[in-house]
Amino acid sequence: MRNIDEDTITQAVLARHAGAADTRMRDVMTSLVQHLHAFVRDVKLTKTEWFEGIRFLTETGHITDERRQEFILLSDVLGVSMLVTALNNRKPEGCTEATVFGPFHVPDAPEYALGDDVANGARGEPTFVRGHVRGLTGEGIPDAEIQVWQADQDGFYDVQLPGVDQYQARGILRSAADGGFHFRSILAESYPIPHDGPVGRLLEQLGRHPWRPAHLHFMIIAPGYRQLITHVFRQGDRYLDSDAVFGVRSSLIADWIRHEPGIAPDGSTLAEPFHTLDFDFVLDRT
Amino acid sequence: MRNIDEDTITQAVLARHAGAADTRMRDVMTSLVQHLHAFVRDVKLTKTEWFEGIRFLTETGHITDERRQEFILLSDVLGVSMLVTALNNRKPEGCTEATVFGPFHVPDAPEYALGDDVANGARGEPTFVRGHVRGLTGEGIPDAEIQVWQADQDGFYDVQLPGVDQYQARGILRSAADGGFHFRSILAESYPIPHDGPVGRLLEQLGRHPWRPAHLHFMIIAPGYRQLITHVFRQGDRYLDSDAVFGVRSSLIADWIRHEPGIAPDGSTLAEPFHTLDFDFVLDRT
Repeated sequence: MRNIDEDTITQAVLARHAGAADTRMRDVMTSLVQHLHAFVRDVKLTKTEWFEGIRFLTETGHITDERRQEFILLSDVLGVSMLVTALNNRKPEGCTEATVFGPFHVPDAPEYALGDDVANGARGEPTFVRGHVRGLTGEGIPDAEIQVWQADQDGFYDVQLPGVDQYQARGILRSAADGGFHFRSILAESYPIPHDGPVGRLLEQLGRHPWRPAHLHFMIIAPGYRQLITHVFRQGDRYLDSDAVFGVRSSLIADWIRHEPGIAPDGSTLAEPFHTLDFDFVLDRT
Repeated sequence: MRNIDEDTITQAVLARHAGAADTRMRDVMTSLVQHLHAFVRDVKLTKTEWFEGIRFLTETGHITDERRQEFILLSDVLGVSMLVTALNNRKPEGCTEATVFGPFHVPDAPEYALGDDVANGARGEPTFVRGHVRGLTGEGIPDAEIQVWQADQDGFYDVQLPGVDQYQARGILRSAADGGFHFRSILAESYPIPHDGPVGRLLEQLGRHPWRPAHLHFMIIAPGYRQLITHVFRQGDRYLDSDAVFGVRSSLIADWIRHEPGIAPDGSTLAEPFHTLDFDFVLDRT
């Protein structure tokens, strides 16, 4: 191929990897090259803009480390993470919908018994969460692994707080014989995604805010059922219609009901206001 | 927007930046999001593949530093750099075609007089380069700034060699009153692009080699004319049909003619074989 120009380049690139041993890899790269080239042609990308793109990616790479994943953040704000989630979680009517995983899950959260306080010192108004894990025909799913995680009242996850060396506001529980679960935590609040890096500047240039509506993360694992990764979003939050990472689905919005100080669902007497959240999860069979 | 799913996500993302102050930025990002989402849908990207993509970009960012630009390399091997070059260098018939800039140009190369040896110690068989810088009507362009740079006989540019602290095989010359130029350098050889990083592994997975055909870089700047960034490629090179970065255009291929030891074009007597290259550049008026 000695006649590379704007009309022949795409086919030239595709022809070069036509013999790739991994055909899935070949097909993915074929589509990627076609769309990347179509983008460049559509906007007639200038040299200066191309170089800005190179600089943006370089900066995104340099700010990424073991505590911060700016490329996932970029995927999130461009709606790519939610699109991948939606495409890979098509489910029958009645199942709980999935949403983005986010960058704040940890694999080794502490285990708790039902009824425990997973806050473990995280700051926020007490919240009592109750629900059931069920199958599509209504059956309770016993012994399901329920992982929960959330930000504190200031919008920070434990892993974002330099001084905190124990896991807070996250934990692993197991559903009871009837699929029921309950635990204590703190009130979910809206918060901005990390926006002091290149992704934050991109949002600013696009006239977008970095906020996510208040939510509580769940990952539920039970043998014989498909794993569910989702959030429950807090009804009334001002960012429900403009989640910076496009994670909101109507079916995942629920009321956190506020209660005056008094007797809490766990029988204790609280001198401060508290909240209750009821939410059931319905899993699809594998 | 509370009904984000695979059908609504793209419009949701575009709507979010509809009010961006910079309309060019908005249009570029609109096209990018559309094509990125179309790619994800076309191949039905899995969660695992998405995460592989995140890891690839992260690694590409981490290997990039002041001496190595892996994102430009990625753009090069995917044909994006050449596409941007072609789109931004549409020219009238008869003008010298442009090709990729590459990552090895430096802005402060040493200046030389016509006839000088720009090799400056770089290893390779002596080569005498001659030509004219002309306009479309044949007029010689005097005092044009001619920047040249190339790899040595082992395929390395000076900036890639740890022990070398002076610029080698690169320089800036100025054309004579009739547009003519001549200088001495070394023979251009084919070489592999840096392939010990993520881009190299990508090429391997795609069944592609990392080689570039032998070439000599030129950047020519003259008032009243459009700047030209191009290469001259060496006729007969085995990689002319498979340049790893898709830079070859037929009109840029020329003969490096080999001569037995004897009297060189500059009048000196050489005890080793040498080469001559004749190439004229035709610039478009601004």
